[in-house]
Amino acid sequence: MGVVTVSAAEQVVGPARIAEIGEGISQDELQLAGRNHGMPLEAMRYDVTPIGLHYLLIHYDIPDVDPTAWRLHVGGVVESPFTVDLDTIRTMPRTTRRVTIECAGNGRARLLPRPVSQPWLVEAVGNAEWTGTPLAPLLRRAAPTSAAREVVFTGSDHGVERGVEQTYQRSQSLAEAYGDDVLLVYEMNGAPLPPQHGFPLRLLVPGWYGMAHVKWLTDITVIDSAFTGFQQEVAYQLRVDPHEPGVPVTRMEPRALLIPPGWPDFMTRARFLHPGPVSLRGRAWSGYAPITTIEVSSDGGRTWHLATVDSNAPRWDWCGWTWVWEARPGQHTLCVRATDASGRRQPTEQPWNRGGFANNTIQQVPVVVLEE
Amino acid sequence: MGVVTVSAAEQVVGPARIAEIGEGISQDELQLAGRNHGMPLEAMRYDVTPIGLHYLLIHYDIPDVDPTAWRLHVGGVVESPFTVDLDTIRTMPRTTRRVTIECAGNGRARLLPRPVSQPWLVEAVGNAEWTGTPLAPLLRRAAPTSAAREVVFTGSDHGVERGVEQTYQRSQSLAEAYGDDVLLVYEMNGAPLPPQHGFPLRLLVPGWYGMAHVKWLTDITVIDSAFTGFQQEVAYQLRVDPHEPGVPVTRMEPRALLIPPGWPDFMTRARFLHPGPVSLRGRAWSGYAPITTIEVSSDGGRTWHLATVDSNAPRWDWCGWTWVWEARPGQHTLCVRATDASGRRQPTEQPWNRGGFANNTIQQVPVVVLEE
Repeated sequence: MGVVTVSAAEQVVGPARIAEIGEGISQDELQLAGRNHGMPLEAMRYDVTPIGLHYLLIHYDIPDVDPTAWRLHVGGVVESPFTVDLDTIRTMPRTTRRVTIECAGNGRARLLPRPVSQPWLVEAVGNAEWTGTPLAPLLRRAAPTSAAREVVFTGSDHGVERGVEQTYQRSQSLAEAYGDDVLLVYEMNGAPLPPQHGFPLRLLVPGWYGMAHVKWLTDITVIDSAFTGFQQEVAYQLRVDPHEPGVPVTRMEPRALLIPPGWPDFMTRARFLHPGPVSLRGRAWSGYAPITTIEVSSDGGRTWHLATVDSNAPRWDWCGWTWVWEARPGQHTLCVRATDASGRRQPTEQPWNRGGFANNTIQQVPVVVLEE
Repeated sequence: MGVVTVSAAEQVVGPARIAEIGEGISQDELQLAGRNHGMPLEAMRYDVTPIGLHYLLIHYDIPDVDPTAWRLHVGGVVESPFTVDLDTIRTMPRTTRRVTIECAGNGRARLLPRPVSQPWLVEAVGNAEWTGTPLAPLLRRAAPTSAAREVVFTGSDHGVERGVEQTYQRSQSLAEAYGDDVLLVYEMNGAPLPPQHGFPLRLLVPGWYGMAHVKWLTDITVIDSAFTGFQQEVAYQLRVDPHEPGVPVTRMEPRALLIPPGWPDFMTRARFLHPGPVSLRGRAWSGYAPITTIEVSSDGGRTWHLATVDSNAPRWDWCGWTWVWEARPGQHTLCVRATDASGRRQPTEQPWNRGGFANNTIQQVPVVVLEE
């Protein structure tokens, strides 16, 4: 599989659609929501997200990969291109790491107006235990030439997007690709990668939104220019106007989420609970820097209280937090916001862009506390 | 946990809502779709659905069950009520069986007008390998009295539905509960039940829609009357008028589904393929009787062709089918329909009811065959 280098301007049929104000979710969006799912928020109770509860975003179909025929090709502007099979990759140095991955489109369906794509609310996240081998030694073996600039990762998922037929491809700078934390992964939670998470091999780039962790990997191609593929230059760009150049979507903005307390109404997911002390819990992460502060509000964001943060979590593992709320009868809106060591803090105002990316607006959880 | 026997009429606040014609999917429906997901149709390529691709419908939250504290209570109108723990259940006679389970609401979001609930299109199905112990010996040990009439199964999932706070409960007739195929299940695909599929124990009633296979089971209660709980008498009833008595939803109507050929467009899921012979494949099942005939149409249902059906599948396992289509350039609508040995055949017209249950209308898959 070669690298598609047609420029974005030549490829694109048109920008993605923005829904009208008040327009319900369309059948197209529903089809995506029925395939790709979020993590039910109560699953934040698990340190490691069980298989099947981790969020999923699959652009095309899940590819049907025969692991015995499968090969990884490492080439491009390198001295020593090579091909390896899965058994060989499994004999290479082995690393296991807990890494939180969030979809870049998480929060999209809460934006006003709503960009039409996979309609995520706030649940497009998961924290798995990934096992694989570091990428850097494979790159060193291939020996990129002095012209090398980026590394393109090609999956085997194939489809059409805005009129452009393509095989999924994303790039990283050479420096990012050589990062200590970047892995080629073949196990999730101690079992072979499930088909929907990239079997037999996927890329893991801790700290980045999900689009970077290319699944069903077949090719690693070093190139001597900036990659201009669809998923790099057209999609996954922050733009308000469709004709502006765009800012690439990269690392995860800080976000904290609360496990909704009490019990739900089936249809509205409204929450009910008994009065008294309630231990509110949740998780938080940021792709830029460790989480430093979690604040919780029980009055819709008017006043904030410092939560206790578990600061022992490894760097790419989400961190747990708790705060005890004295719940009194009535209606309340619980909120939580995260700040990281880079100074980034979750906003109150939506960071709107027409792709609906990186919307880390503060979560709001309305609850009804019953009478004694 | 006792059995709620308040009559339906006393419980219900009002009937579920029906969407206006042209009304998009609401945020409430989207919240459900983001939690509960279907099986991407390409996953029908797997004989056994991998964990995480099997459909999920969870009414409330996934319960947080401590397996060491968990107990199953068997009681009611019996001579010898008893309580067992998980380790004891795992020492009982062990059976593994492949069983297809489909949500009773599968197809709901394609109905016109659309009943407002979990908005399934056609993918709410899965075929897993379930391991557990037969229920009948446990019932015999409890020794139902001569007054026994039904058996109520209680899960630990708790929430509110149409104003009624409840713990999930469903019943079976004593005769059904004694059925050879009814199992108490603690493994799925050879691993402990995942939390979202009912850990540590669920009921399996092969042939029935999903609502009968009570998850997170805690109580088996023999009663001397007809069970009138919410999920039995209010929900999961076929009604066109909200005030009519209703026909209970029970076994799965026959359905065949096609693995959409070719490759998809990301947003519309429209399919593209090359011309020439295409081996169309899929699966089919019925809760009433074995599948006898699968017919495929490439012209939107005007003409039908007999597919080859794999009739070696065990009774509750879905059966595979294939038909080779000579694809010519242009737009086509592929359809498939199943007939079972009871004479039931999938309809062309929607079987509308206000719960949106058992809509097994023939699947339609529009495809574009490209020029040579």
